[in-house]
Amino acid sequence: MAKVLSGAGLRGQVAGKTALSTVGKSGSGLTYRGYDIKDLANTCEFEEVAYLILKGNLPTASELADYKASLKNMRGLPDSLKEVLERIPADAHPMDVLRTGCSFLGNIEGEADFDQQQNVTDRMLAVFPSIICYWYRFSHDGVRIDVETNDDSIGGHFLHMLHGEAPKALFEKVMHVSLILYAEHEFNASTFTARVCASTLSDIHSCITGAIGSLRGPLHGGANEAAMDMIEKFKSADQAEEELMGMLARKDKIMGFGHAIYSESDPRNDIIKGWSEKLAAEVGDDVLYPVSVRCEEVMWREKKLFCNADFFHASAYNFMNIPTKLFTPIFVMSRLTGWAAHVMEQREDNRIIRPSAEYTGEEYRDVPPINAR
Amino acid sequence: MAKVLSGAGLRGQVAGKTALSTVGKSGSGLTYRGYDIKDLANTCEFEEVAYLILKGNLPTASELADYKASLKNMRGLPDSLKEVLERIPADAHPMDVLRTGCSFLGNIEGEADFDQQQNVTDRMLAVFPSIICYWYRFSHDGVRIDVETNDDSIGGHFLHMLHGEAPKALFEKVMHVSLILYAEHEFNASTFTARVCASTLSDIHSCITGAIGSLRGPLHGGANEAAMDMIEKFKSADQAEEELMGMLARKDKIMGFGHAIYSESDPRNDIIKGWSEKLAAEVGDDVLYPVSVRCEEVMWREKKLFCNADFFHASAYNFMNIPTKLFTPIFVMSRLTGWAAHVMEQREDNRIIRPSAEYTGEEYRDVPPINAR
Ligand SMILES: CC(C)(COP(=O)(O)OP(=O)(O)OC[C@H]1O[C@@H](n2cnc3c(N)ncnc32)[C@H](O)[C@@H]1OP(=O)(O)O)[C@@H](O)C(=O)NCCC(=O)NCCS
Ligand SMILES: CC(C)(COP(=O)(O)OP(=O)(O)OC[C@H]1O[C@@H](n2cnc3c(N)ncnc32)[C@H](O)[C@@H]1OP(=O)(O)O)[C@@H](O)C(=O)NCCC(=O)NCCS
Repeated sequence: MAKVLSGAGLRGQVAGKTALSTVGKSGSGLTYRGYDIKDLANTCEFEEVAYLILKGNLPTASELADYKASLKNMRGLPDSLKEVLERIPADAHPMDVLRTGCSFLGNIEGEADFDQQQNVTDRMLAVFPSIICYWYRFSHDGVRIDVETNDDSIGGHFLHMLHGEAPKALFEKVMHVSLILYAEHEFNASTFTARVCASTLSDIHSCITGAIGSLRGPLHGGANEAAMDMIEKFKSADQAEEELMGMLARKDKIMGFGHAIYSESDPRNDIIKGWSEKLAAEVGDDVLYPVSVRCEEVMWREKKLFCNADFFHASAYNFMNIPTKLFTPIFVMSRLTGWAAHVMEQREDNRIIRPSAEYTGEEYRDVPPINAR
Repeated sequence: MAKVLSGAGLRGQVAGKTALSTVGKSGSGLTYRGYDIKDLANTCEFEEVAYLILKGNLPTASELADYKASLKNMRGLPDSLKEVLERIPADAHPMDVLRTGCSFLGNIEGEADFDQQQNVTDRMLAVFPSIICYWYRFSHDGVRIDVETNDDSIGGHFLHMLHGEAPKALFEKVMHVSLILYAEHEFNASTFTARVCASTLSDIHSCITGAIGSLRGPLHGGANEAAMDMIEKFKSADQAEEELMGMLARKDKIMGFGHAIYSESDPRNDIIKGWSEKLAAEVGDDVLYPVSVRCEEVMWREKKLFCNADFFHASAYNFMNIPTKLFTPIFVMSRLTGWAAHVMEQREDNRIIRPSAEYTGEEYRDVPPINAR
């Protein structure tokens, strides 16, 4: 493997403009349209923040009520989409299911014109939880669930479909927080994928389908699942410390730690960690949470690496009985808002995104006739 | 609409390394692994060039025969994929069909490990024409075609399935040329999409699905369809000139002209133009080809804008009786080689692609309580 360029990965290079968020700049380190992530996560519902990101301002009480009501009406799955989902085997990755579901939605309810972008986005916000849970419950439990429930929120709708019963209030609250934390994050890899796609003036389903594919990667959204796979192997905090020291000695990458932009901490971590602790108390956990805390301590002590948003999401989701392989799809349910807002922003002031490459290949040469090779 | 930044679209900025091609540098302006596009298009078959791009060297005669035989064996469509395709309506865009078909393939034949990347790529190369034609013929003609034909080449296989009979030798030759011209083009928007996705260490079906979505845009691959929509309206060269002058006066963008990197000509244009002329003679055309030539003259005279690869592809495909909406899917059948090779290259020396943005939004501010908004 060749040595990595310092400029690799476009780190620190400005690839465009955004009015949506700041990362590592003001306040606690993350703002959505000028508002601190801490304030939003403490006081808002996810739908409120989705409205903010997509439309530019926080809704009034009646705007929020209308928005939630319209989203509620869009939860249904067309029959042909159900039939497609039923053909995806149980061992498929749920992110790939969502990628296909989103792409297929573009086949049957495509964005005919850019002035449909807001409606099409709202439809995706409402229906992605249905896609995930319909496929999951059909492929794993053999049941065809009703996806048109009356739950108040997107997070509540998701938990209800997944578990077949309305969620506890605490769980629904944590879903709000989690979806708010994941909603938007400037030019991360999946968002940048959506913007590159949008820059060709392609349709929004193409942009979101591409972004889902990028978020799936273990260096990006896939990290919350990878973190869970690691921590659930540890039976105690001491065992966690011991094994982690071994992994560090072997120079393993520890998922859920480090960040491309933040250098000292990820402002989302404190928030989700606080809720993970509350959930641990609620469900009577005395392993996973202490194990997670020890991992955090060891990583900081040994490597000055800090938890990113994904690490304590793993235990939090686990406490709410969410299967590990659905962790990254929840991230999609949320980040969809940021992706769509970036697509809209790119379309407002567009130039096709087409960088250059440094050539490292063969010199100019003649094509040898096939018999002389 | 805000003013476009000079640095917008990452134009001229190095976003990584590649050994696959040079654009606007040596020879006639486009090389694949050091070989001039003119030489490749004149002397090679598409499968030979796909082998070159994917594996790094031109095949010997027996390597080429083996490669073609193995691709031939991979043309079949799994039943569940057929069932999905049958559920996509006739008015869906074929690029969206291919995007869904590729994504679904990842659900049923996913890349479990990166060491499958070459096999999975070959499978896509072999099966994409089947996906396009199966859906097209089912949705438009109500027939379930046999996709496992014995045609020698990918281009021949495509034309055979589309038209229900083996293609003329001239048509098969032009398909080779066309697929060679479109196979690879450095860090264009769709390829860059694939690389951003690959940089998260996501799977190759995600990368290719995302790239298809980007290629679909009218500023990118979609331009060959848009060019056709324009030229087929002109009944004579004089009418073409008159209408084009009006479009230029109205500052319309003329599809099939201009390029992000080339500044004086696109080396692919001469080649496909030559074949378009031969096809015009073969099919007895005396409108479309002269109309196309006049457009080229007028655009150069008026704006110093030159035809890119897409412009004469429109008439060439039309002469071969290919429906306009399948033009960009053919581009996919070819560019897939470049995309996959770039994914492999990104994986070899990876850092997550995560640029920064210039913030243009609201200052830091407090969240007002909902009743005070
Ligand atoms: C997030 C991430 C992709 C950022 O990548 P990046 O900007 O390229 O970070 P860098 O590669 O510059 O990291 C600097 C150094 O710290 C190391 N490092 C970073 N994250 C690490 C981790 N989680 N575990 C171990 N080492 C890590 C790198 O290997 C690198 O060391 P080197 O210079 O010896 O190669 C990276 O931290 C990572 O892979 N983390 C784990 C995956 C994850 O949690 N992703 C979710 C992000 S929200
Ligand atoms: C290919 C393309 C996207 C390159 O974009 P780019 O690198 O951003 O090119 P630029 O915007 O720098 O073009 C420079 C100027 O020429 C104009 N121009 C470029 N292509 C044009 C076209 N096809 N028709 C009319 N004007 C064109 C631009 O509008 C711009 O004028 P401005 O400075 O007054 O705004 C662009 O040429 C285009 O849209 N072409 C038509 C679509 C197409 O054929 N795409 C296939 C590419 S293989």
